[in-house]
Amino acid sequence: MLEKLAKARYFSRVTGAVNRLISERGESNALSMADDVFNNYRKLTKDQHLKFFTFLFEKLNPDPVAVMSAAQNFSVEASARNYIKLQRVAEPPRQELFRRLNRATNGTADLVAMRRDLLQLLDKQPELTAVDFDLRHLLSSWFNPGFLKMHQVDWKSPAEILEKLIQHEAVHAIDGWDDLRRRLQPDRRCFAFFHPQLPNEPLIFVEVALLPEIPAVITPLVDKKAETVHQTSQYKVAAFYSISNCEPGLRGVSMGNFLIKRVAEKLHAEFPGIKTFVTLSPIPGFIDWVAAGADISDEKTGVQLKPAVRLAREQSLEVLDLANRSWTERLSAGWHPDTATEKEKSALLCLASIYLALGSAGRNGNPVAKFHLGNGAKLHQINWAGDLSRKGLRQSASLMVNYLYDLSSVEENHERFTHGEIDYSRAVGRLMQV
Amino acid sequence: MLEKLAKARYFSRVTGAVNRLISERGESNALSMADDVFNNYRKLTKDQHLKFFTFLFEKLNPDPVAVMSAAQNFSVEASARNYIKLQRVAEPPRQELFRRLNRATNGTADLVAMRRDLLQLLDKQPELTAVDFDLRHLLSSWFNPGFLKMHQVDWKSPAEILEKLIQHEAVHAIDGWDDLRRRLQPDRRCFAFFHPQLPNEPLIFVEVALLPEIPAVITPLVDKKAETVHQTSQYKVAAFYSISNCEPGLRGVSMGNFLIKRVAEKLHAEFPGIKTFVTLSPIPGFIDWVAAGADISDEKTGVQLKPAVRLAREQSLEVLDLANRSWTERLSAGWHPDTATEKEKSALLCLASIYLALGSAGRNGNPVAKFHLGNGAKLHQINWAGDLSRKGLRQSASLMVNYLYDLSSVEENHERFTHGEIDYSRAVGRLMQV
Amino acid sequence: MLEKLAKARYFSRVTGAVNRLISERGESNALSMADDVFNNYRKLTKDQHLKFFTFLFEKLNPDPVAVMSAAQNFSVEASARNYIKLQRVAEPPRQELFRRLNRATNGTADLVAMRRDLLQLLDKQPELTAVDFDLRHLLSSWFNPGFLKMHQVDWKSPAEILEKLIQHEAVHAIDGWDDLRRRLQPDRRCFAFFHPQLPNEPLIFVEVALLPEIPAVITPLVDKKAETVHQTSQYKVAAFYSISNCEPGLRGVSMGNFLIKRVAEKLHAEFPGIKTFVTLSPIPGFIDWVAAGADISDEKTGVQLKPAVRLAREQSLEVLDLANRSWTERLSAGWHPDTATEKEKSALLCLASIYLALGSAGRNGNPVAKFHLGNGAKLHQINWAGDLSRKGLRQSASLMVNYLYDLSSVEENHERFTHGEIDYSRAVGRLMQV
Amino acid sequence: MLEKLAKARYFSRVTGAVNRLISERGESNALSMADDVFNNYRKLTKDQHLKFFTFLFEKLNPDPVAVMSAAQNFSVEASARNYIKLQRVAEPPRQELFRRLNRATNGTADLVAMRRDLLQLLDKQPELTAVDFDLRHLLSSWFNPGFLKMHQVDWKSPAEILEKLIQHEAVHAIDGWDDLRRRLQPDRRCFAFFHPQLPNEPLIFVEVALLPEIPAVITPLVDKKAETVHQTSQYKVAAFYSISNCEPGLRGVSMGNFLIKRVAEKLHAEFPGIKTFVTLSPIPGFIDWVAAGADISDEKTGVQLKPAVRLAREQSLEVLDLANRSWTERLSAGWHPDTATEKEKSALLCLASIYLALGSAGRNGNPVAKFHLGNGAKLHQINWAGDLSRKGLRQSASLMVNYLYDLSSVEENHERFTHGEIDYSRAVGRLMQV
Repeated sequence: MLEKLAKARYFSRVTGAVNRLISERGESNALSMADDVFNNYRKLTKDQHLKFFTFLFEKLNPDPVAVMSAAQNFSVEASARNYIKLQRVAEPPRQELFRRLNRATNGTADLVAMRRDLLQLLDKQPELTAVDFDLRHLLSSWFNPGFLKMHQVDWKSPAEILEKLIQHEAVHAIDGWDDLRRRLQPDRRCFAFFHPQLPNEPLIFVEVALLPEIPAVITPLVDKKAETVHQTSQYKVAAFYSISNCEPGLRGVSMGNFLIKRVAEKLHAEFPGIKTFVTLSPIPGFIDWVAAGADISDEKTGVQLKPAVRLAREQSLEVLDLANRSWTERLSAGWHPDTATEKEKSALLCLASIYLALGSAGRNGNPVAKFHLGNGAKLHQINWAGDLSRKGLRQSASLMVNYLYDLSSVEENHERFTHGEIDYSRAVGRLMQV
Repeated sequence: MLEKLAKARYFSRVTGAVNRLISERGESNALSMADDVFNNYRKLTKDQHLKFFTFLFEKLNPDPVAVMSAAQNFSVEASARNYIKLQRVAEPPRQELFRRLNRATNGTADLVAMRRDLLQLLDKQPELTAVDFDLRHLLSSWFNPGFLKMHQVDWKSPAEILEKLIQHEAVHAIDGWDDLRRRLQPDRRCFAFFHPQLPNEPLIFVEVALLPEIPAVITPLVDKKAETVHQTSQYKVAAFYSISNCEPGLRGVSMGNFLIKRVAEKLHAEFPGIKTFVTLSPIPGFIDWVAAGADISDEKTGVQLKPAVRLAREQSLEVLDLANRSWTERLSAGWHPDTATEKEKSALLCLASIYLALGSAGRNGNPVAKFHLGNGAKLHQINWAGDLSRKGLRQSASLMVNYLYDLSSVEENHERFTHGEIDYSRAVGRLMQV
Repeated sequence: MLEKLAKARYFSRVTGAVNRLISERGESNALSMADDVFNNYRKLTKDQHLKFFTFLFEKLNPDPVAVMSAAQNFSVEASARNYIKLQRVAEPPRQELFRRLNRATNGTADLVAMRRDLLQLLDKQPELTAVDFDLRHLLSSWFNPGFLKMHQVDWKSPAEILEKLIQHEAVHAIDGWDDLRRRLQPDRRCFAFFHPQLPNEPLIFVEVALLPEIPAVITPLVDKKAETVHQTSQYKVAAFYSISNCEPGLRGVSMGNFLIKRVAEKLHAEFPGIKTFVTLSPIPGFIDWVAAGADISDEKTGVQLKPAVRLAREQSLEVLDLANRSWTERLSAGWHPDTATEKEKSALLCLASIYLALGSAGRNGNPVAKFHLGNGAKLHQINWAGDLSRKGLRQSASLMVNYLYDLSSVEENHERFTHGEIDYSRAVGRLMQV
Repeated sequence: MLEKLAKARYFSRVTGAVNRLISERGESNALSMADDVFNNYRKLTKDQHLKFFTFLFEKLNPDPVAVMSAAQNFSVEASARNYIKLQRVAEPPRQELFRRLNRATNGTADLVAMRRDLLQLLDKQPELTAVDFDLRHLLSSWFNPGFLKMHQVDWKSPAEILEKLIQHEAVHAIDGWDDLRRRLQPDRRCFAFFHPQLPNEPLIFVEVALLPEIPAVITPLVDKKAETVHQTSQYKVAAFYSISNCEPGLRGVSMGNFLIKRVAEKLHAEFPGIKTFVTLSPIPGFIDWVAAGADISDEKTGVQLKPAVRLAREQSLEVLDLANRSWTERLSAGWHPDTATEKEKSALLCLASIYLALGSAGRNGNPVAKFHLGNGAKLHQINWAGDLSRKGLRQSASLMVNYLYDLSSVEENHERFTHGEIDYSRAVGRLMQV
């Protein structure tokens, strides 16, 4: 009972602090009011978060009447005066609130954490996407690539930062400090974006292997016992084999694209012999997609299969016959690329090429492909037996893929991709035609 | 002729680069397009600046029809969906342009410089205030106090930074490096705000003297031969005697208020014996105001003089009689506070107290007073013979003023000031009643 | 065969390079000759090390005739002229060689490494102590406490440095990175000395626990699951529980003493509430000493036991009776402090107090005691069941000891200790009298 | 009277502190005793300095009897044991004192300052060269080039450091901050050696001009209005035009040689197009030497003029005829290189070539020549009308000289120079033969 009262008190304190901060008094307040908001916010329960963000949504919206009137004036005459008036009334007070909250002791970090909380509520309360829209808009402006610092992370970096790599590596888990150390040797590089306000927080990081040629198999890249190649003359290819976000509160703030390009430029400047930049990427969801019928039809892209490809697709589905014998079953029975039949191999490669080269731009396209192709990369090669880990066998029957970053065509490819067109190599094209 | 063609070419290049940068292709471009815009922009002539900003105004406005329709929907139903739609169409494409321009090599510095150019055109072409509104809005968000770093500037600072203090000191000119060195000794401090993106650019700086008591006269504070007081036990008062902006491109981005407060906190933490924070400030325009009739009537504040004050004002004006003998004339004749009559002294102090304590909140209020009172300071004391420099005699008959920053009441004072109320000491109040 | 020739070639190259470096030409050579020496030295085999240092010993000694003549002149007249002459001829050319070697790319590190090699040869070839004397003399001058920088090592430190702590911790092994992280939390501190020339090499480090009282038992201090105490008001005692050298090449260069004192000063300045500085130290060799007869007689100190103590010692030896039943045997049979008899406990404590309080200054005194008492600490307390680890039971029957650093008496104690006197508490005194 | 007592007290305090510091107690003292010595030393008068250093000389010498005995043993058998004994007794206790003094708060700086005081007493009291010998020996070891850090000093450097350049520039005075700023532009560089212990003290600095060709005239190099050349492709020659020591307490500790060579290497690495490293140097004392008879005979070098050169020398002396009309007189009469006769010009160039190319290695050789030739440079070119400043006309009739640093021959040249041989160009050789 007392606890309930206490909880209610925190809530009324936080809304009180918000009201003060957006008032006239708050305008000139340096720090204390913003600290008040966060200090009380931190004591709220999960339920109260919902109430808090609903408060931000309902009480700090623009005034519809004022917006309507300003819009009318602006539509009659697009003068500077009318324009400014429109901007003033259309911007919600909560944007100013967020900017003022940034004055708090760890304002930026606290705002990012606040968005983390908010994101978890969107499913339950979709109206809060309005508040999230504002926060993401602001964070996108503050974390725009012009403000991000790219740093190499290596064995000289603070343990505090290295520890975060271990925690957040999302693609090929880092198995402790020895594994990490191997990934930071001269022929493996790690680069991260940092924001000046959060100097010990890698926001996103990418791991790169410097190799003599384009890799088709993941194991040697992440083998902690692999011998380090020190001779830089052997570095010809930079292979991005993992990219991970560390900060859920920055979801939707695009950084990966810029990180990969900046790393590519940096490596090219350091090692002029490195002229090829590729990824070695997983294909999550591939087998599920096959099991569900291997359908790439999509309202948005309206992509159509050519007759030959349609035929190849059908034959491949028949060969695999997942309807009658599920993939899980087959794995339990010991399926392995080395013992697969040629027909199975062709069928899987054919379907993967259709999935990635034709289906990626659609609503249900593969997310990894969407990311790299959307960045302007080209679908370069699909690799049989690329990932023999349990997860690799399960999600993609061991297939992996190389996306190629050719810096001279990334912008064009990016634009074409937004119109549904995908750049893929002839080799990939051939796989579709069994 | 050829030159004219070249100029035209730069202009079409810059608009071309702008169009590319805001296109789909530009979205994912890391750096080169933004660099293109600035590289070509730098070659434009002053006339072309006008053309360029007009282009930004006319071509990158929101679409009035879309705004109108979104406003209507939002006024019917303030749902998240309608809200987001409204925000999307109401924000002008040039905001996104500016954010993308920040990706350029020195993007932030170049944007600030661009605004510097723009500000010089506003008188000529007032419609461009629309573009300026957007730029200032963005820069206010990026240079909000949460992102600024306060650093002490002292004799260990890079010459490059110190040089900028000499250049930009706007209140009491710094007469070369020896003068500067004196102002950086232990009993004189200088603090500046920096932005992580512009690490060698002080944005605004304040100079402080640590003293045993509230100063009434400026000379000893800026005397380069003054002996340094090293005994910190003698520091009781921190006197802000100068605050200057270094970056015209950030005009209107409020930083001074936060700087003064942060310095006050820092000094208080370092020297708990310092409990009083005041300014010693000039009163620019005071004599001009007297000469123009000492009128404080103001539409906005609607301030009314009490009968006794009105009388005092009239008597004072009569004593000074500037209509018949101008202040310049009097100065040429050798006027000096030491030889002034008691009547003159009272008259000048009376009018100054009316000017500052009653007139500051009005449209024509004294700008220095507006700044400090608007920050929440209190009008503490008016000092006779405070500034005997040529400029001091001319602009304010040697009068100077102390504004007091009492951190416990600054927010309240700030709010009252926005409603036209000014906090002044009894001592100042007494001066109004001759 | 060819290999042998190659080896011989390296050896003649290194001596050639040495000769060049100490020649006139070498005097003004900036770097290359010194690099030559080390580059060739690194290729020598262990056998050749011996040959190399013998070369330094035999060829780069002072000239006995010149020394004799200079000594005679100096003994006749101790003039400046004769003095300088004496210094010039008495200093061996190899000192100048070592100083010039320091010009090499990593000269200081290479010299330290060279001494590491040399130290391993001294047993085999005692004459080389002459060369070692010179190297140690030089390194003692270069690594004197005035040149060492003390830094706290914490979780923000580079992994490269932290890794070295794990490697070199000599007292209570660090069990991986999680264990290390615990030892760097706010209530555990780690400080190390660094030399500007070797910025990533901790030379010696000490681990400290901040506690409410003097600890008697080691386990809680090194328990990686121990809860961190963040409340600094609870820190009353700083307990040094481990001190380890990282650099064998600096053996005999005294740093530990200064490190402990500088840490004590720093902690006292940071936490004025911490007034007590103690160690919690092991007693290596204690049981072995008992087994060998518990003899403290020593030529140098000539210490004599008082009759009562002599009696107590004999009774204690009888109780333990290690001659008939060895300590190892007893441990195998499950001996443990909790099940020991009161008599055993008294006997062990009695002998330990004699060993430490009376025997430490002698030639065979306990090395840990020698270190702390020699630094001027006081023998404060002997703790039963202080270290229940296998090693603790074996070497000291679980006993541990606190040495107390009272900064006001360390110098006096240090001096007394050099004369064989040991400062111990009454509590320790009482243990001697069963 | 009281003052005299106070003075005496300080003196006895400083000697007391010295005695404590070199005692057993002092051995383990971390800091306070060394601080005591310096705190009291600082209060001594100049007279007391003499007394203090005499105390160091008389009381802290090695023991002649012990030295004699050790020397005898060592001459009988050069064993390690005897060797170590000899080293122990031959080293004076004051060396250990100096090393312990380094533990003081600013120990290194204070020791350097102490030597500054000592150097001023040597003329008066030559016996103190014994103490100076020890201090210089120690400082040479501590400030050996392996420990010095070379840093570029530029406009980003702390004002505190820049100020010291202005103070200590000994060759071409820096006329204030604007002059300094010009000397730090991209085509002018300044490099200095720093010691980790004195991070804000440039110890020695060299100024370099990056030029298209070898300069013959100084004015354009130090002209503060000279336009900056930013195009690095034009940098072909690095001309060292000034080198100055900042720290008199390090006199005789050789640093300049290493600084020049390290700068040459650095510049060559940064601008591979720069292949020529020369100085543009003054010839102080040249006219005085001519006036005194142009004598290069020297006991040490025993240099002999060839008959043709002897003749040329005599004819030149005749032409100049300084015996009858002094140089000062001639200057007063308006002598200037532009109006000099061809004969005068030849005579001056002839004598200068003899002075530098033949006389530099002798006892009275030109000090600047001694420095550069001793570093291994080559006498490359003598320039007519190189320095038209008052000082230039007076000391060398406007002549200047280029010394060439060819890194491939500096060591050989250095060695040859120590044997009296000087490397000079054919062009210089031709000047000797009128």
